[in-house]
Amino acid sequence: MYIVPWQLVAERTGAVLKFVSLDEHDVPNLKDFKEMLTTKTKLVVTHHVSNVLASVLPIEDIVSWAHHFGAKVLVDACQSVPHMVVDVQALDADFLVASSHKMCGPTGIGFLYGKIDLLSAMPPFLGGGEMISDVFLDHSTFAEPPSRFEAGTPAIGEAIGLGAAIDYLSGIGMQKIHTYEEELANYLYENLRAVPNIRIYGPVPNAQRAALCSFNIDNMHPTDIATFLDQQHGIAIRSGHHCAQPLHRVLGVSSSARASLYFYNTKEDVDYFIQALNDTVSFFDSFK
Amino acid sequence: MYIVPWQLVAERTGAVLKFVSLDEHDVPNLKDFKEMLTTKTKLVVTHHVSNVLASVLPIEDIVSWAHHFGAKVLVDACQSVPHMVVDVQALDADFLVASSHKMCGPTGIGFLYGKIDLLSAMPPFLGGGEMISDVFLDHSTFAEPPSRFEAGTPAIGEAIGLGAAIDYLSGIGMQKIHTYEEELANYLYENLRAVPNIRIYGPVPNAQRAALCSFNIDNMHPTDIATFLDQQHGIAIRSGHHCAQPLHRVLGVSSSARASLYFYNTKEDVDYFIQALNDTVSFFDSFK
Repeated sequence: MYIVPWQLVAERTGAVLKFVSLDEHDVPNLKDFKEMLTTKTKLVVTHHVSNVLASVLPIEDIVSWAHHFGAKVLVDACQSVPHMVVDVQALDADFLVASSHKMCGPTGIGFLYGKIDLLSAMPPFLGGGEMISDVFLDHSTFAEPPSRFEAGTPAIGEAIGLGAAIDYLSGIGMQKIHTYEEELANYLYENLRAVPNIRIYGPVPNAQRAALCSFNIDNMHPTDIATFLDQQHGIAIRSGHHCAQPLHRVLGVSSSARASLYFYNTKEDVDYFIQALNDTVSFFDSFK
Repeated sequence: MYIVPWQLVAERTGAVLKFVSLDEHDVPNLKDFKEMLTTKTKLVVTHHVSNVLASVLPIEDIVSWAHHFGAKVLVDACQSVPHMVVDVQALDADFLVASSHKMCGPTGIGFLYGKIDLLSAMPPFLGGGEMISDVFLDHSTFAEPPSRFEAGTPAIGEAIGLGAAIDYLSGIGMQKIHTYEEELANYLYENLRAVPNIRIYGPVPNAQRAALCSFNIDNMHPTDIATFLDQQHGIAIRSGHHCAQPLHRVLGVSSSARASLYFYNTKEDVDYFIQALNDTVSFFDSFK
């Protein structure tokens, strides 16, 4: 969940940003969160699934607590929409976003879901073609949502591609994908934690952990690990701060390595990855 | 040239928008424009080629006049970059924009050129990944341009596609395209003005007229013309206000039909279009 857009909003509006820390299980502290809510809270912004910790948050609860104080909730569902059944009406989220490239779709597109009464009350965000109703020299009137928020010639090919990706995933079945990935998530975690001197971030695996693991191995740079896995074993993982620098500061590191799985991965892929990771560790240990 | 973004800017900043009217040749009145410039002028926004009038403006002159008063110039080059040699350094424009889908590239992408000292002095426009340097809970520092203005996962495929389109057009040669289209523009205009009861908007053809004609035919709705050409003759033209409602008010109509050509069109295409347009006129006249 990017915090930069909210820093820009705060600068413009004078809003005060407050942050939730991690509890002893490396997951956002929901007890603290509940205590931070007041009638002055305007907006709660939360991820559904963390792209670093793999933690899955109880959005229904968060929404219900926030609504009690009159706050709106925006859910970053980029890591949940591609992997599980997400019912925006059941969650009762006011806004929810996801990106296409994390769900087999093209880059350069994503979506914002919003409750229609909120969207209807909002001014346009960008000006251009498609979002207008009538344009005069001194003022303009704007189209109803969603057009109001879709200025300019749309990303036509990307929208068609995203639609095809959604049809494809729906054809497989989101519940089926989720069930399969739960098993894969456990298998990855259990095998990874047997690697010596490893620290895996986030909660221990259960139904509430996504099929990814961010980790560090003592005295080994995550980028070295990623480069060796790529060059020697043809395995692509990510290394760096995963667009979550403040979180890494809380974790006491500047970066981590991250292995993420999707429904097309298998237990055999995990076995190959673990074997390759052990080989990587041996390689770097040989210089000690 | 969209005016809505500037209305949104004016609302936020208190800027006063001033508009240039048309002269007797249906082109923006540059004499009036020169007289409107003062030291209070912050920004001049102009098209290079009008998507309705087909007029080509002398950008070097406009930039030089504007710079004399300390104003910056943003050029909407969406209709020029695909059709002629555009040298941003020779034009001395401070900012210049163009869109990919008008130059054989994919939808969903375009570009903003800006002088580096101006871009370096500008705050980010959107927050997200790729545009940050260091992120802290209470503040962030931002990457140098262009990354600073490219928040989030980029439209990767589209950028590659646009690059391929630019290589393709450059391979043909922009001067070659321009020279060919000049001839085509004249041929279109000369044949079109022979159609009875037609009014073509914009200047008479010469080197300063692009290969497009917006027009109306007496007592015929442009959308009827476009629909008949499409359904009966397989010809795609555009009808409507072409995102230029205030301009159409000045022209005394609410909409127009527009035929636009590109380098892949031929004089035979123009002949077929004129023949089809005459057939269209005959069809609708038969109901009178």
